[in-house]
Amino acid sequence: MRMVDIIVKKREGKELTDKEIKFFVNGYVNGSIPDYQISALFMAIVFQGMTNREIVTLTETMRVSGDIVDLSDIKGIKVDKHSTGGVGDKTSLAVGPMVAACGVKVAKMSGRGLGHTGGTLDKLESIPGLNVFESVEQFKKQMNDIGLAIIGQTGTLVPADKKMYALRDVTGTVESLPLIAASIMSKKLASGSDCILLDVKFGNGAFMKTYDDALKLAHTMVDIGKSLGKDTRAVLTDMSQPLGLAVGNSLEVKEAIDTLKGRGPKDFVDICLHSGAIMLEQAKVVSSEEEGIEMLKKVIADGSAFQKLRELVIAQGGDVSYIDHPEKFEVSKNIIEVKATKPGYVKQIVALEIGESAMRLGAGRETFDDIIDMSAGIVLGKKVGDKVNVDDTLCTIYTNKDNIEEVVRDIESAFVIVDEFVKTPPTVHAYVK
Amino acid sequence: MRMVDIIVKKREGKELTDKEIKFFVNGYVNGSIPDYQISALFMAIVFQGMTNREIVTLTETMRVSGDIVDLSDIKGIKVDKHSTGGVGDKTSLAVGPMVAACGVKVAKMSGRGLGHTGGTLDKLESIPGLNVFESVEQFKKQMNDIGLAIIGQTGTLVPADKKMYALRDVTGTVESLPLIAASIMSKKLASGSDCILLDVKFGNGAFMKTYDDALKLAHTMVDIGKSLGKDTRAVLTDMSQPLGLAVGNSLEVKEAIDTLKGRGPKDFVDICLHSGAIMLEQAKVVSSEEEGIEMLKKVIADGSAFQKLRELVIAQGGDVSYIDHPEKFEVSKNIIEVKATKPGYVKQIVALEIGESAMRLGAGRETFDDIIDMSAGIVLGKKVGDKVNVDDTLCTIYTNKDNIEEVVRDIESAFVIVDEFVKTPPTVHAYVK
Repeated sequence: MRMVDIIVKKREGKELTDKEIKFFVNGYVNGSIPDYQISALFMAIVFQGMTNREIVTLTETMRVSGDIVDLSDIKGIKVDKHSTGGVGDKTSLAVGPMVAACGVKVAKMSGRGLGHTGGTLDKLESIPGLNVFESVEQFKKQMNDIGLAIIGQTGTLVPADKKMYALRDVTGTVESLPLIAASIMSKKLASGSDCILLDVKFGNGAFMKTYDDALKLAHTMVDIGKSLGKDTRAVLTDMSQPLGLAVGNSLEVKEAIDTLKGRGPKDFVDICLHSGAIMLEQAKVVSSEEEGIEMLKKVIADGSAFQKLRELVIAQGGDVSYIDHPEKFEVSKNIIEVKATKPGYVKQIVALEIGESAMRLGAGRETFDDIIDMSAGIVLGKKVGDKVNVDDTLCTIYTNKDNIEEVVRDIESAFVIVDEFVKTPPTVHAYVK
Repeated sequence: MRMVDIIVKKREGKELTDKEIKFFVNGYVNGSIPDYQISALFMAIVFQGMTNREIVTLTETMRVSGDIVDLSDIKGIKVDKHSTGGVGDKTSLAVGPMVAACGVKVAKMSGRGLGHTGGTLDKLESIPGLNVFESVEQFKKQMNDIGLAIIGQTGTLVPADKKMYALRDVTGTVESLPLIAASIMSKKLASGSDCILLDVKFGNGAFMKTYDDALKLAHTMVDIGKSLGKDTRAVLTDMSQPLGLAVGNSLEVKEAIDTLKGRGPKDFVDICLHSGAIMLEQAKVVSSEEEGIEMLKKVIADGSAFQKLRELVIAQGGDVSYIDHPEKFEVSKNIIEVKATKPGYVKQIVALEIGESAMRLGAGRETFDDIIDMSAGIVLGKKVGDKVNVDDTLCTIYTNKDNIEEVVRDIESAFVIVDEFVKTPPTVHAYVK
């Protein structure tokens, strides 16, 4: 079997055999196939796509390329949740404790943020002392003890994805539905939970810009999960404006705390309740979404969801006094309020612009080497559909940087105010299962 | 400027700027841009193509990536000819001496054969002692002395093409019109002649399978040449059956000798006269194709074209007694005649099959390391359009290999004999200038 023949076959739009897919994945991982042939193949895949069978084989071959986490000795149904990434997406920090408080095991391996989207690990690390790197043994112990863990992916999990993603990142081959689906699902399937809920976001602040592309990705990933024997479902959610109000690491942790205390922003609460209810359905502790939502509202109201976040922080070595007294989090030295200059209704808050601006304020990294300022970010005062009067606060900017006039202007320009009434948009647009 | 942005731009079908093209060509040659980014870009070019402006810039940037041969101190108009390659294509060996015998300087840098197509250098080397590697000084001296030289490309000519072609060969990115055009034209334009005649072949035995693709390639290359100030023209010729009768190195040299003595096969003579006449027009020694053809017929009839071949062989150190007595060429030990088993007309002689079979007989190389058997090959007894009776010789096979039953069967299967009358096809199908 020659790699060049596999490249030409895909270039011509033909379906690769299982043998050919295993040949190139394993050859790339073991170093017998060079980068330059894989990047050419990936570009051919960008143009020609892959069939569902090809994607399933690719995912499975990647999944078994390294260690696989075995959680079978942990009692009960383990659920995992993955978001394709967005601006202000602190869902795992709230929905994880909520679902775990209902008695369901939540085993989440998460990632760092890059570019305009934040990462769950970075957000967690804004809590002093908190450690996101545990051994598999610690991870399993914590799952047994408190039923909830959110940690970084171990270094030996899916090395094929690690190597492929690094190559795609520098060869313009990130934007490929089959490669995105295989990358996400190989990691989710290797990390050992029984059920997976995917939050596939669409809109300018998401990886998938359109609803149709997001729907296709969701269907593809759900099909992969099912083909490989896991209960996999997806929600399609809006990422044309930031999720909730807070964007930036400790700012988002504070919003997650508020939410667990019953004071969360409406759209964020909405996504937590719907996502959490599906996870409870997957874990078979409720038989309908409505029942799930009721159960989640109860664990918020009785304080047990908030207690679960405390347990998580303690278990992972974080200083829980920050959870009990969020006012302890460091506040940026520069705080700037952006005011409305005309009355009307908020038609748009461009999520991509807000995400990139937050990054420039210090809240995110452009390259993996950048260091994050945990206190930096943006807190929205208004959301799409809100009525605005002159001098209302559109948002508050937090940063330790100076000379940020240009960023402030860009943030202002992200708000589109119109005269006509604007309806509050829905959060969850579709379910795939 | 980041290479990944250039890749994404091309992937999205946008036009690259001159700066971007120079950035990636020069970066690749100097080693600052890695193989894996260039192969991804090339695959994007396979799908998205390039505009004529992009191709001209690419060609020119490649052309100046190494040494450029300067023939300006050689008197007169220097012409060069290039064929995109085919089966039995010994045109340079006959048309070179013919045109030079008319007083026009023919400066040809040529290549090796690979796969089913033969290379002019290999054919020349079947003449004992003949050297195809000369310094630029020797090349120029020979041009001054006898007005004709056919040598291998020097190692320092167009290093960009050398590096790019090696990469394309193993990454499935050979089949791209802009990359093919830039590869050919960068070398032709760097090798110093004033006029270029391109023989673009089409059909199963050629690189371009269809007339339309060949026409596009011809137009693209002629446009490049003109944009960069050279008189460039092209002929489109048929490569669905082998050219002439002989396929294989010394067999083809013998056919070239026959042709220069006025005894060449009709289709081969035809292509030599038409191509040669255009070269004479380009060199401004005749004012019409008809006049050119007359002049070429005269130098064949008076023996001066044959004398020019003798001068070439002597100048490049070859044993001229082989030219004077072609019966001296070694003959393969196994000679097998393929006979017709039914009467009719020859409808097809699949050039690709004949070319690949000749390679398997020893006449060509599958990889650059293979050693060629100069005596091996196939001599056709019939051409498309010929009438055939039972037991007529369709072709004669020459080889030093044993156990070639399968090759013989494949050669037999290349002949398609039908009951109905078949017209002799034309050789030259179009002119581009």
